[in-house]
Amino acid sequence: MPNISQRGQIMPPSPIRKLVPYAEAAKKKGITVYHLNIGQPDIETPQPVLDAVRNSHFKILEYSHSAGNESYRRKLISYYKKFNITVDHTEIIVTTGGSEAILFGFMACLDPGDEVIIPEPFYANYNGFAVEADVKVVPVTATIDNGFALPPIGDFEQLITPRTKAILICNPNNPTGYLYSRTEMETLKEICLKHNLFLFSDEAYREFCYDGENISALHLSGLENNVVVFDTISKRYSACGGRIGALVTHNRTILDSVMKFAQARLSPPGFAQIAAEAAVDLPDNYFDGIKAEYQSRRDLLVASLNKIPGVYCPNPGGAFYAIARLPIDDADKFCQWLLESFSYEQQTVMLAPATGFYATAGLGKQEVRLAYVLNREDIAKAMECLAKALETYPGRKQ
Amino acid sequence: MPNISQRGQIMPPSPIRKLVPYAEAAKKKGITVYHLNIGQPDIETPQPVLDAVRNSHFKILEYSHSAGNESYRRKLISYYKKFNITVDHTEIIVTTGGSEAILFGFMACLDPGDEVIIPEPFYANYNGFAVEADVKVVPVTATIDNGFALPPIGDFEQLITPRTKAILICNPNNPTGYLYSRTEMETLKEICLKHNLFLFSDEAYREFCYDGENISALHLSGLENNVVVFDTISKRYSACGGRIGALVTHNRTILDSVMKFAQARLSPPGFAQIAAEAAVDLPDNYFDGIKAEYQSRRDLLVASLNKIPGVYCPNPGGAFYAIARLPIDDADKFCQWLLESFSYEQQTVMLAPATGFYATAGLGKQEVRLAYVLNREDIAKAMECLAKALETYPGRKQ
Repeated sequence: MPNISQRGQIMPPSPIRKLVPYAEAAKKKGITVYHLNIGQPDIETPQPVLDAVRNSHFKILEYSHSAGNESYRRKLISYYKKFNITVDHTEIIVTTGGSEAILFGFMACLDPGDEVIIPEPFYANYNGFAVEADVKVVPVTATIDNGFALPPIGDFEQLITPRTKAILICNPNNPTGYLYSRTEMETLKEICLKHNLFLFSDEAYREFCYDGENISALHLSGLENNVVVFDTISKRYSACGGRIGALVTHNRTILDSVMKFAQARLSPPGFAQIAAEAAVDLPDNYFDGIKAEYQSRRDLLVASLNKIPGVYCPNPGGAFYAIARLPIDDADKFCQWLLESFSYEQQTVMLAPATGFYATAGLGKQEVRLAYVLNREDIAKAMECLAKALETYPGRKQ
Repeated sequence: MPNISQRGQIMPPSPIRKLVPYAEAAKKKGITVYHLNIGQPDIETPQPVLDAVRNSHFKILEYSHSAGNESYRRKLISYYKKFNITVDHTEIIVTTGGSEAILFGFMACLDPGDEVIIPEPFYANYNGFAVEADVKVVPVTATIDNGFALPPIGDFEQLITPRTKAILICNPNNPTGYLYSRTEMETLKEICLKHNLFLFSDEAYREFCYDGENISALHLSGLENNVVVFDTISKRYSACGGRIGALVTHNRTILDSVMKFAQARLSPPGFAQIAAEAAVDLPDNYFDGIKAEYQSRRDLLVASLNKIPGVYCPNPGGAFYAIARLPIDDADKFCQWLLESFSYEQQTVMLAPATGFYATAGLGKQEVRLAYVLNREDIAKAMECLAKALETYPGRKQ
């Protein structure tokens, strides 16, 4: 029997999903598990978005344009305009989720062996796409004590080699919730121009900014040919299962190349493009309620965490994640222990160990990521469980 | 401005789509264009398949399982059972179209520099996935004079090197329509076992066999660990835009690896999985009418082609494609000329030059692929146009 590929062996499993069997076992024992481990919003998908699909009338589910339906791309012009981002429909390629936008960006811009610098902790699946594209992820470390702010320019420059081709940020950040300031974005621009690098910017959480303005990489004037934005409707409209994203850039050479990758896979999903197009027509105040809800959850979560002795959680400015430092020996062990050996009033909490978000071995061992995708009542209960758990966890340490 | 990747430059554009601007120009001149160039079926998507989505009641469009909804995968067991293929739901990973199944198969089984032998002419997008996975396509030539039958075993063995890891077939074949016989499938098994190769089998057109039985690679006993089937609902249910496919294998090591690629992109499209699940419940006689329709089109198309002086078209046993040899100098020039410079009663035909389906330079220059995805009346008119065109084409030669 032939061996599978080296690539197939080194491909990393999802660090977020590896605890799932323990959660399932806990549930079988009758324990309620509060899922703070995964970014699946509990907010309902807006009714008009689902209705657009349910009320559709086409007879043949045909391939769409490889770049996505022109009607949808044209509508996206007005979506981006609301964020003072000026693009035309030929600068947008609709992708199968943000995931495919990342893969296409890597494939079109980076060659095997090229290096991309990413502030860590970062979204773990970047590692997977890097393996697929055979590019090397070079982490630059952001620290919890600094609230996960952009590392200083010197830290980046120390890592730049002749193979460095790009910097990748996620803003607002998954997993830290950090929202990059205008000054930080200008710093990134400066580095990219000085060293002739692409700036990949994952802006999946653009709408979810609580303490400041969202500066898109597409706002950076003079960097038009370097910036590639990865976008998605997943979190924005609680439409993760639709698998509709976009790659947006002003760089025509990149667009021409990405189109070839898009043509090879024929088209992005059809039904969900209808949903996505309807989503652009949601009233402007749609996000007001959603944002207020997430913000109140964040406030509750962060305050609750910081009240627990030995716990520290910086206040994240955006997205719906926070990383907290806990008084524990090992986050992986602790998160497993929560599911396997702990319950409080027949309840426990599922968290994501932060180790999976760092590329540097050994970092994040005292940190966990929490996604505030539960209602306030459940968050309160989950925090109560966590406080009790930390009192009794055998591996507790400061 | 940074340069895009070498990979992004060598990525091939779609040979099928490059004539599109000429077709658009012809239409602007008021000319009716009969599209025989692309495998977009004109058959309507079955109503129950579309209705399943339109009548769905969920409130949140959530991520599905990375391997696809378990309910759908369990239902597929009965689908495959109808073809005497025995699989369980853990041996099926639902993908974003057959395209993603191909990419995942390449990624999980082949390393950069590995070689995959493919009988040519072949589906042009295999080249694109090969570039993405950085693997080398090695063509073994099938000839029109032999009706595009599997090349002799000696032709394969001559091409095998220490880097050869797999053979890829498409059965029934796109672009030739050829249906591999049991003897040919046994030959492939023999080669794969002798040389320890994977057998990738693209079975997108499984239902569409007119002159014989479809032998799936999954029928080859003793080859269980070598076979990876790429599947899709696109052509089967006229559901190309859904983007639902599957990778099917008995090899657990491959499944474990492919799951990691599947997790990285989170999940396949949600709406279309509902459609796909409903499709499994279509009555068994659903395909009788569809097959009869395609077969009558094939009969008309092939008979009409062979009546045109100087034209030869072998009778394809399956799928909905045929390759014909025409009395012309250059298929690319001819297909462009049809759109740019020719019309007959304000009508013309769009064909796919076969050169795009051969990896060996210079082959296919007198051949075109025709997809019989139009009704008989339109096929008849298209054939009339083609006959007239061949009378006046300035590059005519035998």
